[in-house]
Amino acid sequence: MAIDLSVPDDVQALVDRTRGFIRGHVVPLEDAHDGDIAAAGGDEFRVELQRAARDAGVFAPHAPVEYGGHGLGMSDRAPVFEEAGYSLFGPTALNIAAPDEGNVHMLAHIANPEQKQQYLAPLAHGDIRSAFAMTEPAPGAGSDPSALATRAVRAEGGWRINGSKWFITGADGAGFFIIMARTSGEPGERGGATMFLAPADTAGIRVGRHIDTLDRSMVGGHCEVFFEDLLVPESAVLGEVDRGFEYAQVRLGPARMTHVMRWLGAARRGHDVAVAQVAQREGFGSKLGDLGMIQKMVADNEIDIAATRALLTRACWELDRGEPAGNATSIAKTFAAEAIFRIVDRSMQMCGGLGVSGDLPLARLSREVRPFRIYDGPSEVHRWAIAKRTVGAAKRALRDSK
Amino acid sequence: MAIDLSVPDDVQALVDRTRGFIRGHVVPLEDAHDGDIAAAGGDEFRVELQRAARDAGVFAPHAPVEYGGHGLGMSDRAPVFEEAGYSLFGPTALNIAAPDEGNVHMLAHIANPEQKQQYLAPLAHGDIRSAFAMTEPAPGAGSDPSALATRAVRAEGGWRINGSKWFITGADGAGFFIIMARTSGEPGERGGATMFLAPADTAGIRVGRHIDTLDRSMVGGHCEVFFEDLLVPESAVLGEVDRGFEYAQVRLGPARMTHVMRWLGAARRGHDVAVAQVAQREGFGSKLGDLGMIQKMVADNEIDIAATRALLTRACWELDRGEPAGNATSIAKTFAAEAIFRIVDRSMQMCGGLGVSGDLPLARLSREVRPFRIYDGPSEVHRWAIAKRTVGAAKRALRDSK
Amino acid sequence: MAIDLSVPDDVQALVDRTRGFIRGHVVPLEDAHDGDIAAAGGDEFRVELQRAARDAGVFAPHAPVEYGGHGLGMSDRAPVFEEAGYSLFGPTALNIAAPDEGNVHMLAHIANPEQKQQYLAPLAHGDIRSAFAMTEPAPGAGSDPSALATRAVRAEGGWRINGSKWFITGADGAGFFIIMARTSGEPGERGGATMFLAPADTAGIRVGRHIDTLDRSMVGGHCEVFFEDLLVPESAVLGEVDRGFEYAQVRLGPARMTHVMRWLGAARRGHDVAVAQVAQREGFGSKLGDLGMIQKMVADNEIDIAATRALLTRACWELDRGEPAGNATSIAKTFAAEAIFRIVDRSMQMCGGLGVSGDLPLARLSREVRPFRIYDGPSEVHRWAIAKRTVGAAKRALRDSK
Amino acid sequence: MAIDLSVPDDVQALVDRTRGFIRGHVVPLEDAHDGDIAAAGGDEFRVELQRAARDAGVFAPHAPVEYGGHGLGMSDRAPVFEEAGYSLFGPTALNIAAPDEGNVHMLAHIANPEQKQQYLAPLAHGDIRSAFAMTEPAPGAGSDPSALATRAVRAEGGWRINGSKWFITGADGAGFFIIMARTSGEPGERGGATMFLAPADTAGIRVGRHIDTLDRSMVGGHCEVFFEDLLVPESAVLGEVDRGFEYAQVRLGPARMTHVMRWLGAARRGHDVAVAQVAQREGFGSKLGDLGMIQKMVADNEIDIAATRALLTRACWELDRGEPAGNATSIAKTFAAEAIFRIVDRSMQMCGGLGVSGDLPLARLSREVRPFRIYDGPSEVHRWAIAKRTVGAAKRALRDSK
Repeated sequence: MAIDLSVPDDVQALVDRTRGFIRGHVVPLEDAHDGDIAAAGGDEFRVELQRAARDAGVFAPHAPVEYGGHGLGMSDRAPVFEEAGYSLFGPTALNIAAPDEGNVHMLAHIANPEQKQQYLAPLAHGDIRSAFAMTEPAPGAGSDPSALATRAVRAEGGWRINGSKWFITGADGAGFFIIMARTSGEPGERGGATMFLAPADTAGIRVGRHIDTLDRSMVGGHCEVFFEDLLVPESAVLGEVDRGFEYAQVRLGPARMTHVMRWLGAARRGHDVAVAQVAQREGFGSKLGDLGMIQKMVADNEIDIAATRALLTRACWELDRGEPAGNATSIAKTFAAEAIFRIVDRSMQMCGGLGVSGDLPLARLSREVRPFRIYDGPSEVHRWAIAKRTVGAAKRALRDSK
Repeated sequence: MAIDLSVPDDVQALVDRTRGFIRGHVVPLEDAHDGDIAAAGGDEFRVELQRAARDAGVFAPHAPVEYGGHGLGMSDRAPVFEEAGYSLFGPTALNIAAPDEGNVHMLAHIANPEQKQQYLAPLAHGDIRSAFAMTEPAPGAGSDPSALATRAVRAEGGWRINGSKWFITGADGAGFFIIMARTSGEPGERGGATMFLAPADTAGIRVGRHIDTLDRSMVGGHCEVFFEDLLVPESAVLGEVDRGFEYAQVRLGPARMTHVMRWLGAARRGHDVAVAQVAQREGFGSKLGDLGMIQKMVADNEIDIAATRALLTRACWELDRGEPAGNATSIAKTFAAEAIFRIVDRSMQMCGGLGVSGDLPLARLSREVRPFRIYDGPSEVHRWAIAKRTVGAAKRALRDSK
Repeated sequence: MAIDLSVPDDVQALVDRTRGFIRGHVVPLEDAHDGDIAAAGGDEFRVELQRAARDAGVFAPHAPVEYGGHGLGMSDRAPVFEEAGYSLFGPTALNIAAPDEGNVHMLAHIANPEQKQQYLAPLAHGDIRSAFAMTEPAPGAGSDPSALATRAVRAEGGWRINGSKWFITGADGAGFFIIMARTSGEPGERGGATMFLAPADTAGIRVGRHIDTLDRSMVGGHCEVFFEDLLVPESAVLGEVDRGFEYAQVRLGPARMTHVMRWLGAARRGHDVAVAQVAQREGFGSKLGDLGMIQKMVADNEIDIAATRALLTRACWELDRGEPAGNATSIAKTFAAEAIFRIVDRSMQMCGGLGVSGDLPLARLSREVRPFRIYDGPSEVHRWAIAKRTVGAAKRALRDSK
Repeated sequence: MAIDLSVPDDVQALVDRTRGFIRGHVVPLEDAHDGDIAAAGGDEFRVELQRAARDAGVFAPHAPVEYGGHGLGMSDRAPVFEEAGYSLFGPTALNIAAPDEGNVHMLAHIANPEQKQQYLAPLAHGDIRSAFAMTEPAPGAGSDPSALATRAVRAEGGWRINGSKWFITGADGAGFFIIMARTSGEPGERGGATMFLAPADTAGIRVGRHIDTLDRSMVGGHCEVFFEDLLVPESAVLGEVDRGFEYAQVRLGPARMTHVMRWLGAARRGHDVAVAQVAQREGFGSKLGDLGMIQKMVADNEIDIAATRALLTRACWELDRGEPAGNATSIAKTFAAEAIFRIVDRSMQMCGGLGVSGDLPLARLSREVRPFRIYDGPSEVHRWAIAKRTVGAAKRALRDSK
């Protein structure tokens, strides 16, 4: 009846277990490899991490129960994913890293039983990884999805796909691809995209170079991917033909929010590290943490953390009710990506020279969080979308009042 | 069991009634008097406004049911007060303006039956107004309450109070005062304040000049008040002797949040006015609202509104559970005061020359909201308090780990 | 040969005299009337102020020597005007307030000898005031000058002018108007404006209401002005027909910079007032000015003052060399308007409740400086112009490299 | 007589040569090694770069003419160093990288003839590198130099030095060290530091690990250095005993400004790269560079570049006049470090996914410029120093007026 923000007991128990597992087991491994998951062993390392998570009872909190997960909704995921994100390797350990987490979510909603059997089941269990092939190099689909240039045309018994993608997270080593391709219309027009499923070893799929990005915690990197006369059967269509953009929204809203959850955990880690430093270091005749300019940074971090969480709570609640929540997720994502960056940046600043060194995890965290203001829609594109809704409503109101 | 952010139906009905009443009845009156409530008629005008609110079924949403109110908790007040704040005269109309609203809250919690009868009942009904006499000119109690210099000493049959206050909202015309005075300790020490109740016409209470502040929507202004050998009986003590600072917290946490609710309504008004302007005005070959730099301002306003509401939701929920919520209210107040200022400032900027003119309510709103970053604790003091908690906890953790 | 930032001795002497005159004579008068120049007596008060300035040897630093001024170039004006701006009434006292100061500048460059005799001479001497009638209500010329809708058409022996203006500073009581009217082309097209000179008592000029703006220090206010079949002779054309937009640039570049000079003085006043407060007030066991969060505000003010001055120096030097300096003046104006606002806002914040009261000049200063982010081109329009140049140059470079 | 900001012809010629050399020769080498100077070959690579700079006539613009340099003062260095900084390897090529450039400056001012012969001559010629050993790990001299803990005590024929340093730039491979050690007083007290000169191969000097920092463009890295019973003769004293803190100021003011010059060049590089991108890429139906939110970022970059240069001009002019310029350099450094960071950050944002990838130099630039807000005094320490001067002056004025 009334507003309730309490965390259910079973979720809280999972939060606590996750916290213990991440801080006790995963953070030390991250520190040992300076947050570079490829250096830590890539997929082999992932398998070990996930075994440990399963042993700790914290594996796959998001996956449907029938696929071995905990079946948590969005609101319940928030505190668990935040704890997982406290280590850069945490999401991989729990099998909730991008893009697999979002792909599990989307397949659970859209895939047919055969597709679920073939793709969702092994993905949810961590037997394989996956990739979501949507983003294209300019002038293709980047911030503006309507520019989609990869094409699928009908061919004998199915479809022939040609096109180039890039920034395809986890592509190197993925077990299968979800491919976004234009099935009608021209680049610049919205309508007419379709999603296809294809095992990674299908002829016509070529994974190119790893793009050398600021972040280094994603297994399989961010890669170029080429579809060269890739032939897929009719059964490869995910959902229905020409509804790809619509499905992308099913994936993107929740995926934005789980990104926020994980990165908020990373920001909190940075904050905790910095606060511990200023609580013990001396300077100018007092503890650094008792100096006004440092106190301002500490408080601004606390405010940014609280506001990010609060906006996330709202958006998750809307998603759990089955609303599209496009505005709430755009608002939460935009605020969070900028707040998280500020939190880590202030944390570095509080620690002085140490802050930009490898002796603390802050420099590493700063590299990881910066791209979030661009990934999953740059802040500018989200602001544009938010303003379009607001101004559009005002225009309609003006018309109606005439 | 799970998170729930839905507004109960009866509250929503009150929200809707309030919205209709404010926009239909109160906004036009505010516009007619440029938001200057003294010019509009002061207390006489207040009485008329409150009669109209009673007729509309929206009077005193916060007051206990036994005193004629709707008895709403903090969470339920939020959307109602926000609608009331949409007009600068709205809170007065609903009898939820500062300081009366906070005084009703505090008296309901702390006063004894006789005091409730004498003070709370007429206050809740709008028969009288009240003042909360805490703030003092330098070097007395301002941002730092421990500097409290007004003293009450035991006298024949009660207490004798001497001291100077200022920025006492609503003092001119108030029916009674709640007086914060030192009953033990010295200025600079925390302990030892007591609250006293006294009718305004008691000998020894003198209301001085109105301080000419940026804001003009408060009936009774912000005044200097002098206590000159004011004698009050033992029964004037509110609660217990020497627990004044503690009671102040009972008042201040919720009072901060209702300030946020009201001012958020004012900010939303500014935003709506500006969006309506840019949705219809042309420039540079398009509607202003379709230009990127304007879209950025619109979106940033939406984000600030959403984040303020979300932080408010959190703090109110904690207060409704009976938690002190000192950190949550400090965070929400600090963020909100700055966000509300930004929202109104951007709204002015979107409207160009019109924005700083009296032809729109924006300039007036900007004057009203600026002081909120100072009233109820300047942002710097709240940040200091937030950081003290965080750094203090880190210091304790370090000690414990040794 | 090398870079030199020293102030010539004679200019420094004028700076020092101005400083003494403003602080000794003008500031007390401003305080006595709360910065409201109409309340202080309007034009009569202006005449007295200017007599005192002449007696102090600081009158008309900008006017050509042959018209009784000091003949200072832009670089030399900067420190003198900044001292004048230290009081809101200072520019009026020295006869360097907008729009007269800019009109003197433009007439000295463009008017013919007869026009100089008729208009420039009495204006420079302070015998009359003037108005520059360019800005129009929507959908006319506001931020986008090409929307100019007031028209002048050839008529028997001259021109007939029709149109509406607003935000015409100083219109009420002005001795003459400089009128910007379209003589060819259509609204939305750049080309084809002409400037006309007309005595204020010419039939067909009607001054409407004062627009009630945040600022109150301009004699003659900001007014609506209507041209209703206003007939002017051929000799009323200022410069040449159809070159009005070009002349506007002659006026606007320097006028922007003198605005910056004056308002920088106002900001420095605010800063000085606040620093004096925090240097003496105590709180939290120390002088407020020794607390870190206050120190941050003090330092940020110093940085903003220094950066504003430094950008101004650059732009004035370019203007003195005869360069159009469009980019340098846009950059300096945009930065300065925002910096000056921040400085005054921080100064208020440092002073707490006092800061938003009439007991200090800060609230008044805050109202005065806010519109500067809109007057003389909103920040958004300047940013657009700056970016157009930069991106345009990059586009040309790309084309050339192909 | 009057203000002059023109660049002398011979300096402009050097600026032009430097620009040609950097863009034609150095930028391609930087790109080939992703800005990692160790990977590019470290000292061997440096020798080659410097040979090329000498051939191009741009070597050692700062060094005294008698030591083979161009003998430029601070004002003249500014545009040359900015061009050098356009490539991260540029300062090394011209022999003006930190700390050698600052050490040349200081030795030219303070060293005696024998010391100049032994240390300054080969350093100015690029035959050797140097290190400035001042910063210490907590609780030693970091942001607060008075905490200096390394001690030099008189010993047979000279001094015995013991202590630990870190973040000693260029230590690995340096030919000699300038060592800051306490010769009187206790940590926490200002007085009593002395500078000593010692060849790097002196027994008792041990270079420890490289600290893994965000930046990678410094030959010799940032190292730990240990002095373990290091014995130096009396002739090793630089200047006079106990005047080390004073000499440090001689070095630090100019060194801060040359840091700004170099990093401003790097920021301009980032800006140019981003503007070239948005001038050619399409999205949302137009060039990205014609969209308002991108235009805002472009304009803000231009404003930040202009303001940084303008503040630098002021500070350099003061330094060239022989003033200590402590306030002007603190202001310029603080503003510049934050502005440069913003410029590079916006440049990344404008380029979307490409911006955080190794395909453009932006991610690399972002890593390099972040530490500047900490190196050479964190922004907080400079703000504290600026505020101390301002508030201190106000306190004195209050005292004098009593």
